[in-house]
Order: sequence, then C-alpha cells, then structure tokens
Amino acid sequence: MLRRLTRPARCGNPADMLLTRKASGAFVIAPTPFLPDGALDLASARHMTETFLRSGAAGLTILGVMGEAPKLDAEEALAFTRAVLEANAGQVPVVVGVSAPGFAAMRSLSQAVMEAGASGVMIAPAPGLRGDEAVVAWLQEAAAQVAPAPWCLQDFPLTTGVAITPAMIARIAADPRLAMLKAEDCPGLDKITAIRALEAAGAMPRISIMGGYYGLFLPEELARGTDGVMTGYAFPELLVAMVREGMTDAMWDRFEAHLPLIRADSQPGLGLAIRKYVLARRGVIAHATARAPAPKLSDASRAEIDHLLRRLARRDPIASGLT
Amino acid sequence: MLRRLTRPARCGNPADMLLTRKASGAFVIAPTPFLPDGALDLASARHMTETFLRSGAAGLTILGVMGEAPKLDAEEALAFTRAVLEANAGQVPVVVGVSAPGFAAMRSLSQAVMEAGASGVMIAPAPGLRGDEAVVAWLQEAAAQVAPAPWCLQDFPLTTGVAITPAMIARIAADPRLAMLKAEDCPGLDKITAIRALEAAGAMPRISIMGGYYGLFLPEELARGTDGVMTGYAFPELLVAMVREGMTDAMWDRFEAHLPLIRADSQPGLGLAIRKYVLARRGVIAHATARAPAPKLSDASRAEIDHLLRRLARRDPIASGLT
Amino acid sequence: MLRRLTRPARCGNPADMLLTRKASGAFVIAPTPFLPDGALDLASARHMTETFLRSGAAGLTILGVMGEAPKLDAEEALAFTRAVLEANAGQVPVVVGVSAPGFAAMRSLSQAVMEAGASGVMIAPAPGLRGDEAVVAWLQEAAAQVAPAPWCLQDFPLTTGVAITPAMIARIAADPRLAMLKAEDCPGLDKITAIRALEAAGAMPRISIMGGYYGLFLPEELARGTDGVMTGYAFPELLVAMVREGMTDAMWDRFEAHLPLIRADSQPGLGLAIRKYVLARRGVIAHATARAPAPKLSDASRAEIDHLLRRLARRDPIASGLT
Amino acid sequence: MLRRLTRPARCGNPADMLLTRKASGAFVIAPTPFLPDGALDLASARHMTETFLRSGAAGLTILGVMGEAPKLDAEEALAFTRAVLEANAGQVPVVVGVSAPGFAAMRSLSQAVMEAGASGVMIAPAPGLRGDEAVVAWLQEAAAQVAPAPWCLQDFPLTTGVAITPAMIARIAADPRLAMLKAEDCPGLDKITAIRALEAAGAMPRISIMGGYYGLFLPEELARGTDGVMTGYAFPELLVAMVREGMTDAMWDRFEAHLPLIRADSQPGLGLAIRKYVLARRGVIAHATARAPAPKLSDASRAEIDHLLRRLARRDPIASGLT
Repeated sequence: MLRRLTRPARCGNPADMLLTRKASGAFVIAPTPFLPDGALDLASARHMTETFLRSGAAGLTILGVMGEAPKLDAEEALAFTRAVLEANAGQVPVVVGVSAPGFAAMRSLSQAVMEAGASGVMIAPAPGLRGDEAVVAWLQEAAAQVAPAPWCLQDFPLTTGVAITPAMIARIAADPRLAMLKAEDCPGLDKITAIRALEAAGAMPRISIMGGYYGLFLPEELARGTDGVMTGYAFPELLVAMVREGMTDAMWDRFEAHLPLIRADSQPGLGLAIRKYVLARRGVIAHATARAPAPKLSDASRAEIDHLLRRLARRDPIASGLT
Repeated sequence: MLRRLTRPARCGNPADMLLTRKASGAFVIAPTPFLPDGALDLASARHMTETFLRSGAAGLTILGVMGEAPKLDAEEALAFTRAVLEANAGQVPVVVGVSAPGFAAMRSLSQAVMEAGASGVMIAPAPGLRGDEAVVAWLQEAAAQVAPAPWCLQDFPLTTGVAITPAMIARIAADPRLAMLKAEDCPGLDKITAIRALEAAGAMPRISIMGGYYGLFLPEELARGTDGVMTGYAFPELLVAMVREGMTDAMWDRFEAHLPLIRADSQPGLGLAIRKYVLARRGVIAHATARAPAPKLSDASRAEIDHLLRRLARRDPIASGLT
Repeated sequence: MLRRLTRPARCGNPADMLLTRKASGAFVIAPTPFLPDGALDLASARHMTETFLRSGAAGLTILGVMGEAPKLDAEEALAFTRAVLEANAGQVPVVVGVSAPGFAAMRSLSQAVMEAGASGVMIAPAPGLRGDEAVVAWLQEAAAQVAPAPWCLQDFPLTTGVAITPAMIARIAADPRLAMLKAEDCPGLDKITAIRALEAAGAMPRISIMGGYYGLFLPEELARGTDGVMTGYAFPELLVAMVREGMTDAMWDRFEAHLPLIRADSQPGLGLAIRKYVLARRGVIAHATARAPAPKLSDASRAEIDHLLRRLARRDPIASGLT
Repeated sequence: MLRRLTRPARCGNPADMLLTRKASGAFVIAPTPFLPDGALDLASARHMTETFLRSGAAGLTILGVMGEAPKLDAEEALAFTRAVLEANAGQVPVVVGVSAPGFAAMRSLSQAVMEAGASGVMIAPAPGLRGDEAVVAWLQEAAAQVAPAPWCLQDFPLTTGVAITPAMIARIAADPRLAMLKAEDCPGLDKITAIRALEAAGAMPRISIMGGYYGLFLPEELARGTDGVMTGYAFPELLVAMVREGMTDAMWDRFEAHLPLIRADSQPGLGLAIRKYVLARRGVIAHATARAPAPKLSDASRAEIDHLLRRLARRDPIASGLT
C-alpha cells in the first residue's frame, strides 16, 4: 500500500481547494504525455499543465480513460500526478481518476493522490454491474473506500455498459462527498434536466454537473443546466469560452467551426491519438506518443486532421500558426 | 413460410435492377412511417419514396435498424416493402434489411421481398458471434439462405459487437452475390483504405462500398474510396450533393452547416425520433410516430432541434420554409 | 398479422387450462424435432408430446431457446405449436415462448398460439436493456402486447445480460396475468428465498416459481420453495420424480447418478445437440437434427455421451435398453 | 515500478523450476486468505501452501480471478506471492496471474513476482478485444511485456468474452515462452482435440494443456489429451487422484460423489465464497473472509453446502471429520 507517502510541501491541498458541489467552468482532461520510447514525459506534463491554466481551465482532470491510466503502473501514476500538481501549484482543483478493477487499488491510489494534493477523485462503475441496487451499492462502497476524498461520478454508459438513472444519482448524492457528476450518457440531455428537477423538488441536494462526451453536445448541455464541461478537446480555449460566455449566435458559429474536429475526436480509441497529435502540433506536449495498446494515426488520418486544422484556422485564429 | 407470393405486375424486378458491385450514389435509408395509433402509414410510405427519389436518391434501403424492422410482423414488413416498391416503380434499386435472429425468418423475408421486386437484401452478423471463422461461416450460411438475392453486408460493430476485418471481407467477397459493403465501423476510415488496397492487389474483387455511420464521416469516406453513402439523414439532398459533386471547400462549408443536426441524429435510439421529427416537419411523412419501444422526443429536445433547423436555414435554403 | 386464425375445434383452451399462479410440477421443455433435411418433423412432435405426457409432465413448454424458436419462421412456429397442442389434447398446460426482438412479432405469435389453444406465453427481457426502470417498463409493455394471455417471466441473465431483482419481480407481479417465474439466475437460490419472503410479507402476490438452469440446482431450488421445474433434460422422469417425491436421500442418489449428463447438457449451445441426441437414442424423436446455426456433436462427444448413458443405466433403469 | 526488488535468498527460482511445456499434474489454484478485518492472512497463506503440497499438487496458481487479485494492491499482491513462494520453497512451480487492464501493471507485477521466485505468469486476453488479429496481437504484446517469464494462456471466454481458436493458439505458440494453455472454453472438449491434432500435424509445437472450468469436465478433458488440470476445487486430493490414476470406473464413482459440490462451485461469483467456506471448514485457511465486492454465503447456502459435505463424507473419507 502507498500509505506512507508524505505530502510534498509545495503542492498543498488547502481545504478551499477540495472539489465541491459548487465547482464550475471548464475542467480540462489532460492526457498523459510520453517520450518516444514510452517513458513518462514529465517535462511535457508540467508544460501542458501551465498551458491549460493559461487557457482558462477552471480545473484539471487526469488519469481518466483519455489519460491512459490503465497503462501506468502505480509509481508512474503517482509521479505524473505530482508533476501536474506541482505545475498547478494550487491554482485550480485537480481531479484524479482512480477507477480500477478492485477497491484496494482504488483506495491506495486515492489516498496517495489526495496526500499529494489532489482535490478529488473520479470513479466510474465497474463494467458488468447489473441491477440498480447492485450499482448503487458498488458506488457507495467505492465512495467509502476513497474516503475522505470528495469524488466525481463518471456516468459514461457507452463505455461501462452500466445505466445510472436520475433516481439512482439522487440516492448516491446522499453521500455529502459526492461533489460532481460527469454526465456523458448519450442521449443524456433529458437526464440532466431530470436531475436538476429532482434537485429543485428537494429530492436531492444540488451537485455540480459537468458535461462531457467529447463536448459534442456542450451547447445543449449548458442550456439544460450543467455547471461546465469536463473533456479533453485539444483546444480548451473553445470550452472555456463556451462555458464563460454562453451560447450566443457567434459562439454557435465558433462551435460549428470546431465540430468537425470534435467529431473526429469522438472516434473510440482513435480519439486519443488525434488529441495527442493536435496537442503536439500546438506545442502543448512534445510528442504524440501513446502507449500500446493504442490505435496508431495513419498517414492518411494525419492528413485528414491537418486538413481540418487548416479549415479551422480560417474561422478561429487559435488554430492558426501551427507548426 | 411466405413462398407462395406472386410478384405484383407493376413493381417488376428486371435483371438490371438487381444490386450490383457497381452500385454508387446516395442510398437513402427510409424509416417506416406510422399513423398516430401505431398502424402502418402506407400513404406516407409512398409519398416519402417519391420525395426521396426527387431528392436524387440513387437507391433506397428499408427495414434496417432505423426502419424499426423488428417492430413489424412479417405481414407488415411485406406490406410496407410493397408500398415502397410500387412508388419506386423500378426507378432505383431498393435494398431490404432481413437481419433476424434465425435463418428461417431471414430466408422467408428475403424470398418474399425479392419476389415483390426488391433489388437485394442487407445482412448484419448476429450479435454474440465470436472468432473470425465463426463470423465468416455465419455470414456465408446467411448468404446461402437468401440465395439467389444479391446482398449488402452491414458492418456496424458498435451495434453488433462483431468485428469484421478487411481479410474477412475478402473471404466473404468470394461469394459473387456479395454486392455491397455498408461500412460503418468507427473508427473505420483506414479500413476502407485497406479494403481498396486488397482489391487493387487482386486479393478480392472490387465491391461497392457505401459509407454510413450517420454520415458523420462522409467527406473522409469519399476520399478513402467509397462509392457513395447509405444513411438516413433527413436532408438527403445534402448526401446526394456531397457524393455527386465531391468535397469542394464550399461543400465542406455546407457539410459543416448540417453537422450539428447530423450529430444530433447519431444519438443511439433518439436519432430515429429526431429523423422522423424532421421528416415530418419537412412534410415527407405525415407523423413522427415511432412504435414502442422507442425513445420519445421531449419538448426540450424538440426545441433544440427546431433551433438547429433555424440556424441551418440561414446557411442552406433546403432547410428554410419548414412548417 | 396472424389474427384471422380460427381455433381448431380439437385443441380447445378451456379457462381451466390457462396458466395460473397455482401451476406446479415438472414442465418439460420440448425441443423442435426436424427431419434430416431440416424440415419440421411433425410426427416426432406428436410422439414426443405423448411420451412426455406419459412420463408425468405437468406441463409442456415449447419454442424457447432450446426449441430453436428463432430458426423457425412464423408459419413453422405455428404448425409445430398446433402439432403439440393436438397431441396434448388439453391434458396439461402448454406454454409457448414468444420472445422476439420486437413487440409486433411477439403480439402476432402470442395471439396465434393462444387462439390455437396454448395456455400461456413465456417472455424474456430483450438483451441490452439497462436500468431497473427500463427493464420493468419493457416487461410491462410486453405483457400488454400479449394480452389477454397469462405469461411466464423467464429470468435467465446469463443469456439475456439483464438483471431482474426480487423487488422488480414484485412490481411486475402487480399484473394479474403474470402467472409464473422461470427462475434461472445463477447464483439464484437466495433470490427464490427472497421472492417467497416478499410474498409472505404481503409485498407481492404468490406466483408460481419454476426452477430451471438445466436442473443443475433442482434439489436446492425445491427446498427454497419452487413449485416445480421447467427444463428440457432428456430424462423428464427424473424431474417428475424429484418434484413429486421430494429430495429423500435415495432421490439425491438418483440425482447424482444423472448429474454427469445434466452437467453435459449445460454446455452453452452444445447442450441442445446432446439433448436431441439422447432423445433420439431414447426413441422420443426420430432424428437428432438441429437447424443451422447449431453446434455439431463430434464422434468423440457422442462417445462421451454414450459412456455417460452406460454408466447411468447401471444406476437408473430408465436409461437401460437404449437402442 | 517495482524493479528494484532483490530476490530473497530463500525462495530461489532455479532454471529447472521455470514453467515448461512439459508441465503436468494438478495445479491447484489457491485463494488469497484474509483475516476477518480484510487484511492479508499470511499465516493461512503459508499453511494453505503446505497443505496443498501435501495433497499432491504438481503446481500452484495464485492471483487469478479466484485469487481476488484485483482486490489487492501491488504491495499486497507481492507480499502474498512471497508468502506462498517461501512456504513452497521450490518444491513445485508457482504460476502467478498478472492479467491487468494495462501492460504497465502487467509488466511490473510480472517482473516483481519472477524476481521473487515465481515459475511463470498467467495472462488472459483483455475483455472487449474483437477480431482474431487484434486478439493475437494483444497477446503477443502482452507476452513481450512479461519477458523473459514463461507464461500460461488462460482461455476462459465465458468471462473474457474473447474467442481464441486452435489456429490462433498455434500462432501464439510460435512464442517459445508460451508454456501452457489453461483450457476453459465451454464447450471446449473438441477444442482440446483440435489443438492436439495441430500439434500432431506439426502445425505447432506441443504445449502443456491444463483443463479448468471448475473441473466440471475433467474426466473428458483427460481423455482428450490434457496434461493435467488447473482449478481451485477445495478437495485437491480428488484432482490429484484423477490426473495420476486416470478415469477408472471407481474414479468415475468418486468424481460423481464430488460433482454436486463441484457444481455448486461453478456458480459465478458465489463459487469463491463456497470454496473459501469449505477450505475453512477443512482447516486449510483460518477464515472464509472474502474482500468486497464479493457475494456473501447466506445461512441457507451454508446449510446446503454442509449437507453436500455430509453426503460426500459417506462416499469419500477425505470429506469426513470436518470441524
């Protein structure tokens, strides 16, 4: 177990930096950068963190599916977390994905990253859970394991195969440490409305709801009542602007200009390769390397993304001047 | 069994209307229209067919997943097929989905619709098949069952859970009746390239490849070598134009203008409700009714689609003037 | 639709032969016999029915998974049902599986078989349903579709992937036409106890519960409170004796003697081939033919079953004298 | 990463104790014992190891699914492995399950346990892999990650959902470090025969094949050509006797006497609780505790197992005298 870690002095976790139900804004999901030989690229991790903060990120999320978490061993996961936390230096909350096949790994990692200064952890139900009671019980036990960390529930049934209804979320929200819902069911807009209705009716406390699902439905999610978005689109400036400024007609135009790339991102598996490729082209990370097993971006795919970036550059200056 | 059907004189199936490997263009997937009480709306079926033909459809596909095929009984499926075939009157090929849990139903329906004048049938592998050999053997047996109909292989692993590699497609293409591949793996672009490479290398005969997957990646699919597209987007005029005119910059602009609606279409389950709603608003079908079990379009969802249509109307005149 | 069928005079369906919550005993699941060329073997269907009745069957179940239902078209399903009903001649209740991908086929088949004299229908939840509410709603709608037929709920999550909890069953049992539960969850014994406890507490009406799952846990199921068993073991005499006489030590000995064969039966897919092989060896059906797609029994597998039958014959005379 | 471990002097891993293709006999799958509070019970781990060795185990397998491996964190997994290796003291090969969602954890754990003196590692394909090429490529990469450890391929498609055909195994066996196949497909007997035929035809080298699947089909597996069995039945003496002495009629009688308990073992999830309960009643481990999430054995279930043990004791003395 990883319990004997001491918290580094420089990346404190003051009480006001813990994840709360009032969290809002664009939480950027950060990939895990690697060197061409597959080793962790901690220099890129720090540079990426600083870049995302400059882009206006209201929070950072690491070690999710997009963060290739299962491909890291426990020491690597912690080393990467520390690099991000140090670069963040307490500026925004950092949420760390701790989903794992078993509770022991979940507890160990959670304890280690909270000691290192994380603001909360993210948990998705284990694939294969069936039946509302079993799902709720599993999540309640998982929440107990990561105590006293605040946590974010990831509702992504297309990946987990597990359905979580608004009524189940209301039950889970009896845990005061449930701070946030990462809402990425699809279709999922009416579900956001239903949860907000339960809150309004007093059937559950108000929690922070972040949209997700690649940002494909971010405009509608905001209208339904989300507090922000948590996704890893390689132009987080767009996410920040949409959440901050709201969906004016001009913002819809801007969203539409980005939609072809967002759509490309949403390809299962390949999306990670595309995000890393774009982040590398933007100079956010040094290398687009992903660890095996990972889909490779073919030359044809790269040319397609390059074409999308050129088109985007004509409509949004943040995409111009890529090297 | 349904073998004693006589072919209606007026919807002939001349040899040159059978589906071939040279098929190209936009094959429009037609929904099955219902009256508000859930009964078949054959008047809408006829009007829809005529409308799609006027839009430039190079073919029609009915009784697929989007056609609510499993919600029809055998007599209804045949009645709807006949209505479409009569309205089509031999103008374009009509492909009929015959996927079913068992071969007997597949064979019966295939025989009935081919006698009624269909041009070919569409088959997806049964969910649960595992192992390349088992998948290929199942598809070969399915093809034998629908003989002598030409057929289209639907490769939609996100729905079936069955992987079909280019090498497997090459083996299946040894059947001269395999006319067409409906390519909707995701990610799937490199797969199209790989199949075309196998053909160029003489490892398999050239077959017709239709893109699909809601049309989300139609521009890239065409560049990778598809012969057209087979999907049910409610503005088939766009699909027709993209396939006929190719992806100029202006066409990319037009595609982008439609992408928010195409994206909404791609929501599992809900997409059908959205397509029927838009087709009803366009006057193509009389009612947006879908048979249970089907997701309902909430008022909020309808308002969101209406907003997308208003935005679209400013950039593409085909969306203007909706009632 | 198949609504115009008239009920044959000779296989009546008097009110006292409808499936009720008081049903008990061994309901034998009958396979669908085929001739070597794959055509329906209706002569075997009749002979099999008479044989099962002589064995003491308290009911018959046809067109389940073991009945190769998805491999029959609608006319064949009805022809086979009629052959069984005629041979049964109203002696015991006959339950007909009507599970289908869509409600229309379910409704058509249900209406047709009830008109032909069936006692009730059996429904399993559609694979892919997720979330208690969605499962309950789907089953309630399915029940509405088959009205006014009494029905049996098949709870077989290893095949359907759908979890049904005791609380959900209590809600579904508000439908007075829910007569029976085919309990084949695994592990499932505590679930039987939980349902009986809900009944005892007045939380739901008492329903008939039949064990299943190949009969592997029949002794324990009876002790937990089932009213009988519904499975297709090729020696239904054993099932009849166990249910009627209870689990004495001698009956446990007899069960153990059969367990190696029951175990062989429980192999997914192959079990059907084994059951048909043994039934053919016993002279119950004329041919062991199964329709494609179906696992074949290799020579080695047949020899293994023959060996099990020889061993069984030494401990139970019903297995002796096989041709 | 866990690379800095030094090998303890006392649990050496001499070359002749590495897992080879000549491995045979009963490899006993050991559970991970816990104290009532959920902490590792290393005293039980040592006592269990000695007991299994006295029972005639030809090998030990730890940290498989039955070993609750995903519920241990990295340090616990290694501590338990060391306790078993020390008690084993080089007497028999010890195989360690290293299946994990990502290659990094697999590599770290493999390196650590091999340095600690394990004889080889066991790998199952990741759930969700689809397509023969993808499965073979993943396994080849996994094998590269655990180099230079010899490895055992676990083929358990009912759990993984991944099909592995004999032809695929032949390709994977080109890796000289593939020592063993844990054959637990179901039905799987013809597959064993097919692999042995490929070996006889020179299409692949001869590998060690261990039966599995709870031991339910051990008699038939041996006749098909397995070299032994790898399972966790709580009376390993039976497995040892069956493999060593072969399936005489008397051995079949003995197998039949155990079959009711083996059958109870095979209940998904609950089987672990039953095995631990019986091992605790036999005094092999001190407590039946399993870590959450784990099915609990109800009082009724315990009474059922007790009854099976009493019956077994009348036919096999190894089950008598349980405390």
